[in-house]
Amino acid sequence: MEAVGTHCILELYGCPLELLDDPSYIQRTLSDAVDRSGATLLSMQHHRFEPQGVTCLGLLSESHISIHTWPEKGYAAIDVFTCGDVAMPHRACDHLIESFRSQKHSLKTINRAMQVGRQTPDMPMAVQVSS
Amino acid sequence: MEAVGTHCILELYGCPLELLDDPSYIQRTLSDAVDRSGATLLSMQHHRFEPQGVTCLGLLSESHISIHTWPEKGYAAIDVFTCGDVAMPHRACDHLIESFRSQKHSLKTINRAMQVGRQTPDMPMAVQVSS
Repeated sequence: MEAVGTHCILELYGCPLELLDDPSYIQRTLSDAVDRSGATLLSMQHHRFEPQGVTCLGLLSESHISIHTWPEKGYAAIDVFTCGDVAMPHRACDHLIESFRSQKHSLKTINRAMQVGRQTPDMPMAVQVSS
Repeated sequence: MEAVGTHCILELYGCPLELLDDPSYIQRTLSDAVDRSGATLLSMQHHRFEPQGVTCLGLLSESHISIHTWPEKGYAAIDVFTCGDVAMPHRACDHLIESFRSQKHSLKTINRAMQVGRQTPDMPMAVQVSS
C-alpha cells in the first residue's frame, strides 16, 4: 500500500514556560502553523491542566495537528500528520520551533500506512536533531 | 529527560468499509478503547469527509487518541498517546484492532521526549506486526 501521508513527530525542548502555559498563544500558533503548511484547519479543541500544561488538538482536512505541553520542563510533544502530497507539514514544524523559541528539538518523519511487513524497527523516517 | 509517556502508532488494514465510514461507531469504539486503557476522555471532535472517510480526535487527561480512516482502502491510521505510567495504551490498541476487525495491523511504540541526541533512526520502539 502506498503511503497515505506524512506524520511529523516533533519534540521541543528549552521553551519558555509562559509560552507553553498559554492556551491562547498555543491555539494561535497552531493555527498559524497549519496555514504555513498549506493545510486546512476544520476545528480545534483544547484543555488547560492544573497546575499547568495545555493540550490542543486541531482537526485538519488533511488529518491532524496536536500539542501537549509540560511548561515546568520547557517541553512540548507535537504531531503534525497530513495526508496527500499538497500540504507541507515540515513548514508547520519550522513555525512551531520558532514560535515556541525552542532551544533544542527533535523531528522525525514517518510515512503512514507503510509499516506492514517490517519486522524490525526500521521505520522509514528522516531524523533531524539540532540545538 | 525522562520519557513523558507512550505513543502507540497503529496501522489497521483489511477493515470492513462500513465500519470505517461510520462516525458513530468510530466515536463509540474510541471511547471504549480509552476506557479499556484506563485513561480519561475529556472531549472529542470528529469530521466525516465526502465521499468517505472519518477523522476523530479524542482529548485525554493523559494526551490524545486519534483515528483517520480510508474506508475504500480498508485502512485506518491510529495514534494513542498517553502520558504517565498509569494508562495502558496497548489495551486501547487491542480493542481497536478487534473492533475494526482488522485483518492485518502494525503497532509501533515510541517513548516521547527521549529523542534528542539520537542522530540515527533508532527510535526506541517495540514493533509488532501480525496478520
